[in-house]
Amino acid sequence: MARADGMKKFRILVQYDGTAYHGWQVQPGEATIQGELEAALERIAGAPVPVTGAGRTDAGVHALGQVAVLDLETRMTAGELLRALNSMLPRDIRVVEAAEASPEFHPRYDALSKIYYYQVFTGPVISPFLQRHAHHHRWPLDHRQMDQAAKQFLGRHDFTAFCAADSDVKDKVRQVAVAGLFRRDDLLVFVVEADGFLKQMVRTMAGTLIEVGRGKLGPDDLLRIIASRDRAQAGPTAPARGLFLYRVNYQAN
Amino acid sequence: MARADGMKKFRILVQYDGTAYHGWQVQPGEATIQGELEAALERIAGAPVPVTGAGRTDAGVHALGQVAVLDLETRMTAGELLRALNSMLPRDIRVVEAAEASPEFHPRYDALSKIYYYQVFTGPVISPFLQRHAHHHRWPLDHRQMDQAAKQFLGRHDFTAFCAADSDVKDKVRQVAVAGLFRRDDLLVFVVEADGFLKQMVRTMAGTLIEVGRGKLGPDDLLRIIASRDRAQAGPTAPARGLFLYRVNYQAN
Repeated sequence: MARADGMKKFRILVQYDGTAYHGWQVQPGEATIQGELEAALERIAGAPVPVTGAGRTDAGVHALGQVAVLDLETRMTAGELLRALNSMLPRDIRVVEAAEASPEFHPRYDALSKIYYYQVFTGPVISPFLQRHAHHHRWPLDHRQMDQAAKQFLGRHDFTAFCAADSDVKDKVRQVAVAGLFRRDDLLVFVVEADGFLKQMVRTMAGTLIEVGRGKLGPDDLLRIIASRDRAQAGPTAPARGLFLYRVNYQAN
Repeated sequence: MARADGMKKFRILVQYDGTAYHGWQVQPGEATIQGELEAALERIAGAPVPVTGAGRTDAGVHALGQVAVLDLETRMTAGELLRALNSMLPRDIRVVEAAEASPEFHPRYDALSKIYYYQVFTGPVISPFLQRHAHHHRWPLDHRQMDQAAKQFLGRHDFTAFCAADSDVKDKVRQVAVAGLFRRDDLLVFVVEADGFLKQMVRTMAGTLIEVGRGKLGPDDLLRIIASRDRAQAGPTAPARGLFLYRVNYQAN
């Protein structure tokens, strides 16, 4: 897909362990995922190269399938770009796929849906090999009640009650296609797919489901909380370490 | 098992992600696993409490089942000690079990065998979620040849060729009970059980097996290398990040 001007648009699939980062978006003086990618690209291109992601992840949040694009005037193939980036990126950020994309492709506007998952470990002692990637709640949670509550998120709702108060997004209506809780021994995984997410939406959903699991809220409270459009009615924002951006879905990709 | 002097011996099972540590053993000015455990215990006891482990692990090596003991004059139960320790230890070190032990129990002298495993990832791009816990070898390895070579370690041998040159251990004869290579997609796992291990023995075994996987050595070279008792005949020492102390076995425990 070479263009007359020699510019190529590359689409990359990025995985990261967000533990050491202040989130996706570039912030002066802070290590961020976008910042690390742009720094590596500047070394490759010899000039600044902006990177656009499908969604901003918060400080400490992880990704198995972040999608981003960048424009580069280069004779490199996508495979060569992948290798060059990985040779310069820190080990906790990896470009796992790279391909040339059509000039019109936009990772955020073209996304049909995103899937996140949130991990909670409920045993008394969490393994050192899990602690970076799951929230540790030291007591058992009623996962059946939590799954029943999660189902209340399904459908089209105004999710103002599950959005950080400082968000400046106007339209807070989102369509949730999948919401459920899966359990493997002491690990609970909340999976949610929607056409878009508000600031801290999944973490607020997870924090509210934990209140259900503790018996502080019933599954039926969820519809009332959604209807209230009042952030104070929902549970606390669950810690970032349990959250993964799992996949971004596009048309026929 | 309270004694007249009020002292109790506790046996603890410890897991750690060794990435951030200079190994098990206390070293002045360096963060070590033993050092973190002793620092936490000193805060609990108000006085220094030595911790004795089943084996020293090198800088960057992990453990799923390190065993250690400590003597404490306390009315604490083992469960209370476990909670107290975990509340003070860094998140990448966890005491997963604690029990009172007989005064005679010694985690190193009483060990019948230890099991280690070594992970090598052979795909082109390693996940950020695996990179702390596997050595990344970017090209495919012949895992069948490696498994055949691993079998040559079985039995009673003088393992001088697989021991770091600066070791001051006299008797380098060890009995290997289990040695094999397991594969799951691009992840190769070398498992070895022996009655004892020499300094960097598993990492040298792993480094040598990688040479076999690359075709630089044949499986039949292994017996020749063992017989040479010459460290220079074996392969390089594989990186610490892939190595786990998996379990220490005792009589009827």
